[in-house]
Amino acid sequence: MSDFLTHPDLRFHENGQTSFQGDLLKLFRLLDASFLRIASQFNANEHRFPIFIPAKELQKVHYLSSFPHLATFPVTLDSDAKNLETFSNSEPLSSGGEVKLTKIAPIKDLLTPAACYHFYVHHQGSTLTGPLYLTTRARCFRREAYYAPLERQWSFHMREIVCVGTSDEVQAFLETCRKRVEEFIAGLGLKIEWLIATDPFFNPSKNPKFLMQKLQPNKTEMVFDGKLAIGSVNFHRNYFGEAFAIQKSGQEAYSGCVAFGVERWMAAIIRQFGPGKRTWPGALAKEIL
Amino acid sequence: MSDFLTHPDLRFHENGQTSFQGDLLKLFRLLDASFLRIASQFNANEHRFPIFIPAKELQKVHYLSSFPHLATFPVTLDSDAKNLETFSNSEPLSSGGEVKLTKIAPIKDLLTPAACYHFYVHHQGSTLTGPLYLTTRARCFRREAYYAPLERQWSFHMREIVCVGTSDEVQAFLETCRKRVEEFIAGLGLKIEWLIATDPFFNPSKNPKFLMQKLQPNKTEMVFDGKLAIGSVNFHRNYFGEAFAIQKSGQEAYSGCVAFGVERWMAAIIRQFGPGKRTWPGALAKEIL
Repeated sequence: MSDFLTHPDLRFHENGQTSFQGDLLKLFRLLDASFLRIASQFNANEHRFPIFIPAKELQKVHYLSSFPHLATFPVTLDSDAKNLETFSNSEPLSSGGEVKLTKIAPIKDLLTPAACYHFYVHHQGSTLTGPLYLTTRARCFRREAYYAPLERQWSFHMREIVCVGTSDEVQAFLETCRKRVEEFIAGLGLKIEWLIATDPFFNPSKNPKFLMQKLQPNKTEMVFDGKLAIGSVNFHRNYFGEAFAIQKSGQEAYSGCVAFGVERWMAAIIRQFGPGKRTWPGALAKEIL
Repeated sequence: MSDFLTHPDLRFHENGQTSFQGDLLKLFRLLDASFLRIASQFNANEHRFPIFIPAKELQKVHYLSSFPHLATFPVTLDSDAKNLETFSNSEPLSSGGEVKLTKIAPIKDLLTPAACYHFYVHHQGSTLTGPLYLTTRARCFRREAYYAPLERQWSFHMREIVCVGTSDEVQAFLETCRKRVEEFIAGLGLKIEWLIATDPFFNPSKNPKFLMQKLQPNKTEMVFDGKLAIGSVNFHRNYFGEAFAIQKSGQEAYSGCVAFGVERWMAAIIRQFGPGKRTWPGALAKEIL
């Protein structure tokens, strides 16, 4: 979007993130309640995960090599008392507000880049007796070249509904879930097109995973007004089942997910229907707060 | 607590954080709904804030100098393509799972250390016409020497109810809010003592703010079973009003907050009443999910 979204209940911060209150906080909850209602149709088991995820787990799917430009790491000072004294006795910030780190402790985690990774880590090494239907909402972190309120943030909320099972189970889930999302979108009257897409790999032309995505598309995005991807349907095949040794019916499990970028949905509603709840679609108001 | 809490719906991670689902996720929501019900008695305005908070804002209250041992910083790689290539073409992790950072980008933020800081930043430079009653729930981050599930985590959820106004307004709020919390605790039958406490300063004996807290106590903790602080009532006097230039009635505003460590409340409920919702107090079940 070329023009930045503004709203009286919204504040955009220099760090590419937003605060919100009032009607916007209500909209955030109405939307997430809608996504949870879709998840409940699969009896999806809801989890709440940490903000951090171990680097060694993400590297099982080569995350750090494929998306180094997006990654954010949680860093602390080495806890040696002398080191902490050095840091706190000198001026810890530059005149531009930049932190002057002294010696740092080893870094073993990333800030969560996508909600569903947590599920493959959670179930790794297991043998499934039936398909898993799962859901979580997570704060996700992706460093970008520029940010825009609600529409491109360093950190944002992602709701995901995930299935892990056989190829047939996962494909049936993705098809049914997409139908439920299409019905929800139709009920809202939201201007959405479904478009085939790829993930934002670093150096895509050199990455075999990007080339594979071009050859065998596995990502379909819900694109608002021809410009803003507010969600996606993703078929991972057995990629995570293999990396995390999840077995189903004697072979590596398949997986797929339906993902909703909550702030981008908020942006779409505001852009199409206006800033105040009185002009939002009735289909939203029916959700339980 | 000497013995680690375990629960079938709980998973404790090496990074000092937990995942939870099922009854524990229900307990998390029941407790936060209870805190929100108390907040609603003050018509507290709810906000949702970013995970990051600018270092230059926190340094207005000398956070980095007072709590360098607790601080966690979000760090990214310098976005220069050569730098990213160097990182991604070599093995990004050591054999122990530690990230081998190449050049990093300037660091301007911290991961939120306490929920209420966001409110003073939000209202800085303003002149209040009446007292503010505010609430938010935030993921907070404090690096510790050791971690324990639910009871001492690198990251945890904190619900706060905050008042900014004159000294009288803030003290009246703290007194009333404490009464409401005492009634909630009595309704639960939870074993809580109220004890005077101090903040965990680095090198406390050398920090004038610590000495001031010893002379003029401003923090009272809700302590479960003689061991675990699950919340606190804090009177900041005009400390934040001065640092963030918030005016009320012709002088720097006073502030105070009532804070709830949600995971620690979960731990207290489980330790006293058992792991399953059937034996939890009826006062909890009355909350709307």
